[in-house]
Amino acid sequence: MTGPLRGALRVVGVGPGDPELMTLKAARILGAADVVAFFAKAGRPGHARRIVEGALNPAAEQLRLEYPFTTEVDLGDPRYLAEMGEFYERCADLLAQRLDRGCEVALLSEGDPFFYGSSMYLFDRLARDYPNEVVPGVTGMSGCWAQARLPICHGDDVFCVLPGTLDEETLTARLRGADAAVIMKVGRNLPKIRRALEAADLLTRAVFVERGTMGDERITPLAELTEGPAPYFSLVLVPGRQRAR
Amino acid sequence: MTGPLRGALRVVGVGPGDPELMTLKAARILGAADVVAFFAKAGRPGHARRIVEGALNPAAEQLRLEYPFTTEVDLGDPRYLAEMGEFYERCADLLAQRLDRGCEVALLSEGDPFFYGSSMYLFDRLARDYPNEVVPGVTGMSGCWAQARLPICHGDDVFCVLPGTLDEETLTARLRGADAAVIMKVGRNLPKIRRALEAADLLTRAVFVERGTMGDERITPLAELTEGPAPYFSLVLVPGRQRAR
Repeated sequence: MTGPLRGALRVVGVGPGDPELMTLKAARILGAADVVAFFAKAGRPGHARRIVEGALNPAAEQLRLEYPFTTEVDLGDPRYLAEMGEFYERCADLLAQRLDRGCEVALLSEGDPFFYGSSMYLFDRLARDYPNEVVPGVTGMSGCWAQARLPICHGDDVFCVLPGTLDEETLTARLRGADAAVIMKVGRNLPKIRRALEAADLLTRAVFVERGTMGDERITPLAELTEGPAPYFSLVLVPGRQRAR
Repeated sequence: MTGPLRGALRVVGVGPGDPELMTLKAARILGAADVVAFFAKAGRPGHARRIVEGALNPAAEQLRLEYPFTTEVDLGDPRYLAEMGEFYERCADLLAQRLDRGCEVALLSEGDPFFYGSSMYLFDRLARDYPNEVVPGVTGMSGCWAQARLPICHGDDVFCVLPGTLDEETLTARLRGADAAVIMKVGRNLPKIRRALEAADLLTRAVFVERGTMGDERITPLAELTEGPAPYFSLVLVPGRQRAR
């Protein structure tokens, strides 16, 4: 790489919640980074930031990237795409300023960065211009099935991750085509998810996990869960058909 | 728990290949375990065992569990189920003997233990009788998409993991129903996988990764790959449709 001195961007997966589920590599990078950037919702400390408490270089600049909104605006609303796009542009500029000064910048991502993570949108904007590295992490779903003691896929199982935002018919069809599944974005979609699982004859296998590996987790068969919206950090596990072995 | 002194079984995910992609928790457990058990193919050191070289308690017993066969017998062959079942029974007995003596036993799993791992079959046989813990790990596929710099899923993408052993029609249908996919068990299924991707109009997006994070990895657009069977540690990534943000 020619040109002025430039630092590297490291997108770092910090795992599902338990700080011990960070990788050795993530811990090494966070202990040495000049700048630690992280997303957070208004009024919240930021989930990824909370996970790495105690692992950071004390001299590092902490760069908080606060979402303009989270669930108040629907994903289908044109305002969502436009405003989130502008937000990610501003964030990328903030990181670029530090990279241009030669700083080593670590961008935190809960779980695994490239698996539904917001940090991808900054990576996409900066990767061509700066040296970069992506540190994979343990996903939230892996943390949940480990805590629930639920082996999820075996042998030749087809495994699907489905957003709970899908319409009921599509959700049912995708569940029927899978041997094992995880349903994310549960929240207010819970009653619809339950109906789709019932239609696909999978309700009795489904397990609801809230705040997996975070110390105050809750694990319940979905069929026994009383109705009501589920919190943000929750998902539904549908383990594959255990083969006789 | 009442009865005689009993140790705990800890099923430990050791990540995709790079030893630094082990979790802090895995490293702590492996440094203290009395017994470290691992699967290996005949004549091979064992992939998970190789990853943890340097992280083990030097005084630990190393218990090698050698598969009776791997790809020589087909998954559909009744001999496969029967002989593998007997093998897992023998392995569970070996672990139970150590647990009954009060040993702390760590059972290694490459990637994440409950995501297509053989260690699940021993967990299933021992979990009711012994205290146990499951330590999730970074999956092989996360290691591959991080190294390939390929963000895999965004927003409301449907994500599927498909074994390359599926018949061509099913593989094509499942690919059509997904926004993003990973195809595992590539090997001699590569020509069929290529045809299915072409039929689903996804060949141009597909990327082949061999030995991701293992130091000698190869990353190639699948369309540019010359034919021939692929090695065991390879998979095909089909990243989701990048949303404009």
